[in-house]
Amino acid sequence: MAEINAIAKQFTDFYYSTFDANRPNLSSLYREGSMLTWEGSPIQGGAAIIEKLVSLPFSKVVHKVETLDAQPSSPTLPSVIVSVTGLLLVDDSTNPLQFSQTFHLIPDGGSYYVQNDIFRLNYGG
Amino acid sequence: MAEINAIAKQFTDFYYSTFDANRPNLSSLYREGSMLTWEGSPIQGGAAIIEKLVSLPFSKVVHKVETLDAQPSSPTLPSVIVSVTGLLLVDDSTNPLQFSQTFHLIPDGGSYYVQNDIFRLNYGG
Repeated sequence: MAEINAIAKQFTDFYYSTFDANRPNLSSLYREGSMLTWEGSPIQGGAAIIEKLVSLPFSKVVHKVETLDAQPSSPTLPSVIVSVTGLLLVDDSTNPLQFSQTFHLIPDGGSYYVQNDIFRLNYGG
Repeated sequence: MAEINAIAKQFTDFYYSTFDANRPNLSSLYREGSMLTWEGSPIQGGAAIIEKLVSLPFSKVVHKVETLDAQPSSPTLPSVIVSVTGLLLVDDSTNPLQFSQTFHLIPDGGSYYVQNDIFRLNYGG
């Protein structure tokens, strides 16, 4: 589990720092078969996913990871399920939004790509 | 996607109604290789998972699903990643707790079992 947790930490550090600094650079993480479900809307394929992420209506965003859990998703392949909860600050708001995000990472050539990505804001009770 | 969403809905309806009514009956959903990460604690194997769930320190619990998203996790196997956010009411509290839960469902003989299960309470910002 130590290795899985290190992979998840390294991935999410890269993912959220890149999201917050330069969203188009996330394109290296997605492939043609990748899927994103963003607030309930399904989007398929790396190009469409990046188009969606780049078009989100805020100019500044900061993610703060609060919990990070990971498990191997398969007994035969070193693929990883990563579950994140955290806070988002957008533009000049000082009111953080809570989010949940699930990734499914597939190994390829010494690195990982995102096969599955599910994102939700949580508005509480 | 329609079929995947129907599978996720059917699974979560069964999972949470069984959790709330009779936790030991969840044992049919887990296998020897199943993994649960409960509030950051890793637990492996169906027997240990059920022991953990049954030992949770509340006698009454009600889950209310607020968002439910699902994606196929593999291009070759009809396995499903399910991501849930929702509210929990425990015992006689009227103060709902927010939770996030991720499942990875593997098909087997016309049904599905839980390979991966990650649960977190969300305490907000």
